[in-house]
Amino acid sequence: MDLNTISSPSFLKNLNKKQLQDLAVDIRKFLVEKCSVTGGHIGPNLGVVELTIALHRVFNSPQDKFLFDVGHQAYVHKILTGRADQFDTLRQYKGLCGFPKRNESEHDVWETGHSSTSLSAAMGMAAARDVQGKHNHVVPIIGDGALTGGMALEALNHIGHEKTNMTVILNDNEMSIAPNVGALHNMLSRMRTATPYNRAKDDFEGLLKRIPAVGGRLASTAERVKDGLKYLVVPGMFFEELGFTYLGPIDGHDFEALESTLLNAKRTEGPVIVHVITKKGKGYSPAENDKIGNWHGTGPYKMETGDFVKSSVTAPGWSKLIADTVTRIAREDDRVVTITPAMPVGSKLEGFAKEFPKRFFDVGIAEQHATTMAAGMAAEGSKPFLSIYSTFLQRAYDQMLHDICRQNLNVFVGIDRSGLVGADGETHQGVFDINFLRSMPNIVIMMPKDENEGQHMVQTALAYDEGPICLRYPRGNGLGVPMDEELKTLPIGSWEVLKVGTDATILTFGTTIPMAEEAAEKLAEQGISVEIVNARFIKPMDEEMLHRIYQTGRPVLTIEESMLQGGFGSAVLEFANDHGYDTNQTERMGIPDEFIEHGSVDLLMRDIHLTAEEAEKRITKLVHQKREQEGLKS
Amino acid sequence: MDLNTISSPSFLKNLNKKQLQDLAVDIRKFLVEKCSVTGGHIGPNLGVVELTIALHRVFNSPQDKFLFDVGHQAYVHKILTGRADQFDTLRQYKGLCGFPKRNESEHDVWETGHSSTSLSAAMGMAAARDVQGKHNHVVPIIGDGALTGGMALEALNHIGHEKTNMTVILNDNEMSIAPNVGALHNMLSRMRTATPYNRAKDDFEGLLKRIPAVGGRLASTAERVKDGLKYLVVPGMFFEELGFTYLGPIDGHDFEALESTLLNAKRTEGPVIVHVITKKGKGYSPAENDKIGNWHGTGPYKMETGDFVKSSVTAPGWSKLIADTVTRIAREDDRVVTITPAMPVGSKLEGFAKEFPKRFFDVGIAEQHATTMAAGMAAEGSKPFLSIYSTFLQRAYDQMLHDICRQNLNVFVGIDRSGLVGADGETHQGVFDINFLRSMPNIVIMMPKDENEGQHMVQTALAYDEGPICLRYPRGNGLGVPMDEELKTLPIGSWEVLKVGTDATILTFGTTIPMAEEAAEKLAEQGISVEIVNARFIKPMDEEMLHRIYQTGRPVLTIEESMLQGGFGSAVLEFANDHGYDTNQTERMGIPDEFIEHGSVDLLMRDIHLTAEEAEKRITKLVHQKREQEGLKS
Repeated sequence: MDLNTISSPSFLKNLNKKQLQDLAVDIRKFLVEKCSVTGGHIGPNLGVVELTIALHRVFNSPQDKFLFDVGHQAYVHKILTGRADQFDTLRQYKGLCGFPKRNESEHDVWETGHSSTSLSAAMGMAAARDVQGKHNHVVPIIGDGALTGGMALEALNHIGHEKTNMTVILNDNEMSIAPNVGALHNMLSRMRTATPYNRAKDDFEGLLKRIPAVGGRLASTAERVKDGLKYLVVPGMFFEELGFTYLGPIDGHDFEALESTLLNAKRTEGPVIVHVITKKGKGYSPAENDKIGNWHGTGPYKMETGDFVKSSVTAPGWSKLIADTVTRIAREDDRVVTITPAMPVGSKLEGFAKEFPKRFFDVGIAEQHATTMAAGMAAEGSKPFLSIYSTFLQRAYDQMLHDICRQNLNVFVGIDRSGLVGADGETHQGVFDINFLRSMPNIVIMMPKDENEGQHMVQTALAYDEGPICLRYPRGNGLGVPMDEELKTLPIGSWEVLKVGTDATILTFGTTIPMAEEAAEKLAEQGISVEIVNARFIKPMDEEMLHRIYQTGRPVLTIEESMLQGGFGSAVLEFANDHGYDTNQTERMGIPDEFIEHGSVDLLMRDIHLTAEEAEKRITKLVHQKREQEGLKS
Repeated sequence: MDLNTISSPSFLKNLNKKQLQDLAVDIRKFLVEKCSVTGGHIGPNLGVVELTIALHRVFNSPQDKFLFDVGHQAYVHKILTGRADQFDTLRQYKGLCGFPKRNESEHDVWETGHSSTSLSAAMGMAAARDVQGKHNHVVPIIGDGALTGGMALEALNHIGHEKTNMTVILNDNEMSIAPNVGALHNMLSRMRTATPYNRAKDDFEGLLKRIPAVGGRLASTAERVKDGLKYLVVPGMFFEELGFTYLGPIDGHDFEALESTLLNAKRTEGPVIVHVITKKGKGYSPAENDKIGNWHGTGPYKMETGDFVKSSVTAPGWSKLIADTVTRIAREDDRVVTITPAMPVGSKLEGFAKEFPKRFFDVGIAEQHATTMAAGMAAEGSKPFLSIYSTFLQRAYDQMLHDICRQNLNVFVGIDRSGLVGADGETHQGVFDINFLRSMPNIVIMMPKDENEGQHMVQTALAYDEGPICLRYPRGNGLGVPMDEELKTLPIGSWEVLKVGTDATILTFGTTIPMAEEAAEKLAEQGISVEIVNARFIKPMDEEMLHRIYQTGRPVLTIEESMLQGGFGSAVLEFANDHGYDTNQTERMGIPDEFIEHGSVDLLMRDIHLTAEEAEKRITKLVHQKREQEGLKS
């Protein structure tokens, strides 16, 4: 069928089995085709085609609430709720969001991006329903990977205790963003091959009847065996123990099994877990055969062959550069270990893992645990490299503050995907870390101007033994600069003058340095000479250089790809204020007090006036003001 | 024995059973006596006397690592490691810390305060040990309450997967800081009454032998029964399922059971959970009979009767005032619900819980879940009051940002214990929340000058329906001001002039207003007239008033009981900078870039120069500078 004609999921209820199967084929074809152009989370979505159709047949959205954990598996839901025609703009500026978005559709009732939130939100929605005396269903859909996030486990514990009505869909595809790890995962693997609950129960009851009567202590054991029946050898014992009714495992690509089980769940009192086995990438062989997570989220690809469209960029990717430098140093320094919360692929740690399997720890989606585990290793003299995306470090705020910074432990935190990330949008922008880390005592925060400085900063961080040290680096690739062969250590808190100039100073770091350079070139044409400082240490700052700069009385512009409130620019204002310097010739550029949606970073930067043109305009204004004042004085 | 003579735990190994029992009696007597004067976490410590002695007999600290989760149950450990003579200074300024402290003793290998960190840290220490080829034991001691914190569950999942050697002590006292909730707690309750593992296993094997041979599908069930034997009806199935060997439950006050089980655990390969049942308050009847958590942590009390020494303060406690006002409004507004992460007592929500049991949710120690659950309820039209201590809100940074602020949901967050908290010390100071919340878009943050304004702010927050709103309030009691009968709504972002003045302005809020008033009085004696502004909205600020103030060109002093980096004072600098005002006559007072230890708040404030005298000195200097400048000009 023409998917563009769908306006609401209600049509699904009238389809027969053949029509449903045809629809699944059409949706898969559509997804593979659209994502080959736009890129996107193709793997997870191909896995949930039948599941999403079945959910929309059995439940009534939007009265019944679907909460997609993480949310990148909501494409089929978007198609079935009338948004097929927007897929050409998927994850693009002002286009269809790659995650559920409340302002896109009444069927998107909960926005996600970070993992493991759906059960807590579902508990909230179900509790509100019960308090308000309503009767709708609440249906969180969570992957086996997201289930290991601490807050999902907190929620299971609470939901099981309250016995709240809800249907949790455990979408078990044996792989989240990378092959899953953890005891829960091992348990699910055993469950996958087990006989479904009801049959096992029948079997076991038959078996029990054959036990002859016994007396004494054994009798009470036999009683306990009967009482404990549902906990026995049936796959869902773990969940039953937590207070859930477990249904499954069922084949997530079998419409009949899905519908009958979902109907059963819908009728069951209290919380239910429906264990659905799906295959990531189902129906598109390049994605279906993926074993390491390459097809979790992709850029454009050739539909026929599954070959990824190669980027024309030849500079090294940031994650790989940092990871490879850590690996290089780890060859000499056996204190070095690495920890990742489920991002061995994204963080390019496969090389380290292969070379040093005993010194590599993928802890699963568990940022809190990863961070405090790093603290524990540092307390015992190891030198952990904790590799974590800026946006996910938000999950470990307290662990950074309470465990690492307060105990002043030698953890090296690699803050990957710092700054705007583009297509993943507002849930994933790495623009808060400076603001939330800067008020933590004992911390060092740095960001390199290019990949050569990046490798020296890795060396600096691994040589530093006076406390925690963070290295921010952006999504994407370096600048293609020549690389020094020998690694060196930068003095902590030292800035660097990149370009001398006499009329004004730009203080900036990392990704916004090229912007400053572009502005300076334009300004030179107007006869304005701008000094550019690589403020590569965000904390501590280079106070000697700051004194020198402020003593000249020249205008200062700070530029950061980071929130303005309490950010780097504010740190400069604080310095000036602490030392009695005027700041009325200082201006700050950065991210304003709002969430930044998805789209190409260039377009987003333009939207918030974080551009070379704006820098040029600001400096011109400041310099003219100053010249006027000086003219008035003389 | 004289506990002051203990210098190291090695003496324990030579004691016989009678001597151990005598020692336990002496320790309990010592604890009850010392804490009756200093106050402290008496209940938890009375519960772990035998356990701590047994741990120090079976393991060799500090080579073997004890990690006390939360850490307020480490008093016995402190006594046994040579710190009895310091108990007169417990939790006092420059005195013995109420938590493990690495600079106090080589036996304190991990510092705590916040709950649920011990398993992650233990995994880190064990991993470091294994990487380094060492052979020491790692022994985290965690309560049943702390076990429900998400990061502890993340750690269980990872440890069970890695099969790392460690002995986890599950100190199950059926109550953490309040009676525990959650499915895990219910499960532990069932386990407590169960037959210990090994006996159940023997019994069940006997039972199985009586099953006659069967064929067909039933045969495979019987096989699975045998394979799954250890998961059956034995109490520790949940933990076994996660990859741990479960030992217990054992009586935590029985030396022989403790030692034989700990020795068994020590010999066992892979991770072991020893389930120890203890009684909080054991041996001191007022504490032993406590059912709601009053004896978890106390102030001074009369040793003979267990009567708490009444405070002479008659003004209402902040937590109670806020909770009671929420309850009052909830009578009229049935959208109002409350959520607490295990703090019904500390947050004084018992009244609300009793009056509105269906609208009250104690989710256990689970700040992340509590916060996102609040978001879920708000998304469905309820008006949740999430009551949470400032220091524990740190655990929910991402949930505040990603779930509440990003979706701009109407959650009312009561930030209890904001500012310095005193005796609990550096892990509990509520001095970071302004700094980490201020860069979140959509948020409103306020703090009242007194309890009357506090009640109006509750009304303001519950009437506000444009997004998240936070109300900070300090530990302790109000000022004893008269209370308005009728509640009113304050305009969002409106400040208030408390005292007019012409020479300088102090901008401050909450607890530091009396300091400003004291300084202003002293300054008046010197002929300096100071305006005092109640900057009760920290975000958004009263920009109209700020323009007025800065347009006068008068000196400005900001005072906050909060970190200076990126705090309120920085927000004022940002405002001034954005609007081209000079800030060289603005100064900021607040908490410097370091962690603040335990002690009375007055002494701590003096240490960091956050005093009326300092404010007076700063204003005097600023005003004299200004007068000099004006003198020069004229």
